[in-house]
Amino acid sequence: MPLYDPAHAFVPYPDAAVPHAATGPLTGLCFGVKDLFDIAGYPTGGGNPIVLALSGIKTRTAPTVQRLLDAGARLAGKTVTDELAFSMTGNNVHFGAPLNGAAPDRISGGSSSGSAAAVSHGLCDFALGTDTGGSVRAPANHCGLYGLRPTHGRVSLEGALDLAPSLDTCGWFARDVQTFARVADVLLQPDTAPLPPQVRLLRPLDVWALSSPAAVAALEPALQRVQAVLGQAQPVQAQLDSFEAMYWAFRYIQGREAWMTDGPLLERYHPPLGAAVRQRLEWSRTVTDTQWVPATAFRQRFRAHLAALLGNDGVLVMPTMHDIAPLRADSEEAVEDYRNRSTESLCMAGLSGFPQLSMPLATRAGAPLGLSLLGPAGSDRSLIALAERIAASS
Amino acid sequence: MPLYDPAHAFVPYPDAAVPHAATGPLTGLCFGVKDLFDIAGYPTGGGNPIVLALSGIKTRTAPTVQRLLDAGARLAGKTVTDELAFSMTGNNVHFGAPLNGAAPDRISGGSSSGSAAAVSHGLCDFALGTDTGGSVRAPANHCGLYGLRPTHGRVSLEGALDLAPSLDTCGWFARDVQTFARVADVLLQPDTAPLPPQVRLLRPLDVWALSSPAAVAALEPALQRVQAVLGQAQPVQAQLDSFEAMYWAFRYIQGREAWMTDGPLLERYHPPLGAAVRQRLEWSRTVTDTQWVPATAFRQRFRAHLAALLGNDGVLVMPTMHDIAPLRADSEEAVEDYRNRSTESLCMAGLSGFPQLSMPLATRAGAPLGLSLLGPAGSDRSLIALAERIAASS
Repeated sequence: MPLYDPAHAFVPYPDAAVPHAATGPLTGLCFGVKDLFDIAGYPTGGGNPIVLALSGIKTRTAPTVQRLLDAGARLAGKTVTDELAFSMTGNNVHFGAPLNGAAPDRISGGSSSGSAAAVSHGLCDFALGTDTGGSVRAPANHCGLYGLRPTHGRVSLEGALDLAPSLDTCGWFARDVQTFARVADVLLQPDTAPLPPQVRLLRPLDVWALSSPAAVAALEPALQRVQAVLGQAQPVQAQLDSFEAMYWAFRYIQGREAWMTDGPLLERYHPPLGAAVRQRLEWSRTVTDTQWVPATAFRQRFRAHLAALLGNDGVLVMPTMHDIAPLRADSEEAVEDYRNRSTESLCMAGLSGFPQLSMPLATRAGAPLGLSLLGPAGSDRSLIALAERIAASS
Repeated sequence: MPLYDPAHAFVPYPDAAVPHAATGPLTGLCFGVKDLFDIAGYPTGGGNPIVLALSGIKTRTAPTVQRLLDAGARLAGKTVTDELAFSMTGNNVHFGAPLNGAAPDRISGGSSSGSAAAVSHGLCDFALGTDTGGSVRAPANHCGLYGLRPTHGRVSLEGALDLAPSLDTCGWFARDVQTFARVADVLLQPDTAPLPPQVRLLRPLDVWALSSPAAVAALEPALQRVQAVLGQAQPVQAQLDSFEAMYWAFRYIQGREAWMTDGPLLERYHPPLGAAVRQRLEWSRTVTDTQWVPATAFRQRFRAHLAALLGNDGVLVMPTMHDIAPLRADSEEAVEDYRNRSTESLCMAGLSGFPQLSMPLATRAGAPLGLSLLGPAGSDRSLIALAERIAASS
């Protein structure tokens, strides 16, 4: 890790010798890796001391990390994750709360908290995270970074700790879109469903209605800019049913899988957990078949609905989250409420498995706000290319 | 660690190959080691996730642990410690609260919580702990074990994390005095100040007065038994000044040294800490020269006073603590109050550096109570020999 880490972004493991290619497309860049990914010579802590103790020193490096090393990028270190990646606050009771480089009085967001903190403080050029329910997009929104939740399954999570495998994705952060795109060139194969040069921009009114009026106002100039580049946005409704139905479908699926992932750990080792994570896992344990089965059916219908809405050229433009990050001084209840409200818009990409790219194009009250592009499955690189065009337009 | 750890006594590190001598005086015994001691192949966690992360895998084994291995004892695993060893409750917010095998509804005590839990549950035969202000004696009292705080400096703490070096000692636990003595034969050289066959038993009335009347009543038969073996106890006053003066001298010295030990960690890494430990360390930071200097002078005077009282044949017989362990369900405030009351009697051995052996000779309300022998510096093995005579008398 960097000798100086004012952001408390890195887990202070002793540096292991992690070789990288001498030259490659990422030469000159250094990167952080969320402490869910195995890296030979390091343990994998997963944001929990008992998981860290159980880990031992890994002898293999996760293929996605290896790819970055093979492309010439240098490892800066492993970054703090929210506990078991099952939180969006960026406050880990065991490993601390990494600082938000764009808004120091506000939470970084999580669970890829340390990765966002490290990039937003300039301690590395880019950083890997994971996104199950918003764990890349939320910190990207809060810390003023580009952050992608890729198409589900598109970037390998082999050698990384699971949360809810049918929802888990591997994303990353960068401060600028050029760096972001360089990483995409390494991590993503060519799009399986590239967008045409002229996309059909869609403005989902129901998603925009979730945002605070102040956030909508703050995002308006960015929306205008996007429209200037990509063409006028057509107003649509994104929801199949209600946000509430989608929210619960997401939570049942996530809960069911999270309990399958972490239940054995809890039952065998009784690890002390932060109160909110414990509560969420205890709730996860209660999810029944009669909740889960309809949720998976809803997911299928929602995915088909969104695929139909987007076709092969549609791109939703919408707020990444309903507002700027809560203050660090806010109560736990306020942050939890924020989390619940955020999940409504964040779980569209989660449930559908479609890619969503958050762009740091606005601020409100001095804090960043992200505008997102959400495209059809397999359009990840096209979305990044759109972001490059938008960035170039300023 | 044992495959089955119902006591949550062990930190679940992957087992390393730790060789031990095929035969020796401890053949057939297995032991736990508090997670403050380095063991090659394991990290040293010190009860804090950031300390664990910083540790890496150790390549050397602490000499005291090596001595046990060389004597034929087999390592069972590393045991949970209270955070930074700076607590006596046995409740670590990161690694859990090991269970008390003698009184499951009561705290194990700490900071050598996992070691006492493991021995009291029969998961190993003996276990190493450390005792700065009572971290062996308190869990011995609570879990119904033999536990020694040796003469300061007599058992090496090389390769172990410090708390307050001028007070830190390395002790151990066993369920029976025979096993306890076998370990003593390995860890202790012959006494530098052996007690004569006929000791002068002293009953410090002021220490006894600290105990609850119920505890005094419960200890009375044990005291009678000790007197039957060692002769009538002569009533004395143990204090030089007041318990309050001794308590503050101890706390200022401990605080000053604890801040020297852990301050750099706190200032550099801001590790999240359990609330009580944090509060204690924040207080430690405030200890000034004008508090510390008189405290060290008081320590000198108290040591000289106690040395004069004991001579070369005196042994104090007294309650190890003022009562049985608090309930696990008790409030944190109640446990903290218990800690403060306990410190008054516990810090006599701490300040003087003299050895104190707690013997599990009584119970009250179904929970263990320890009776202690405190002798002059260098009389450790003689105290254990007295305990063997007492145990044989029943």
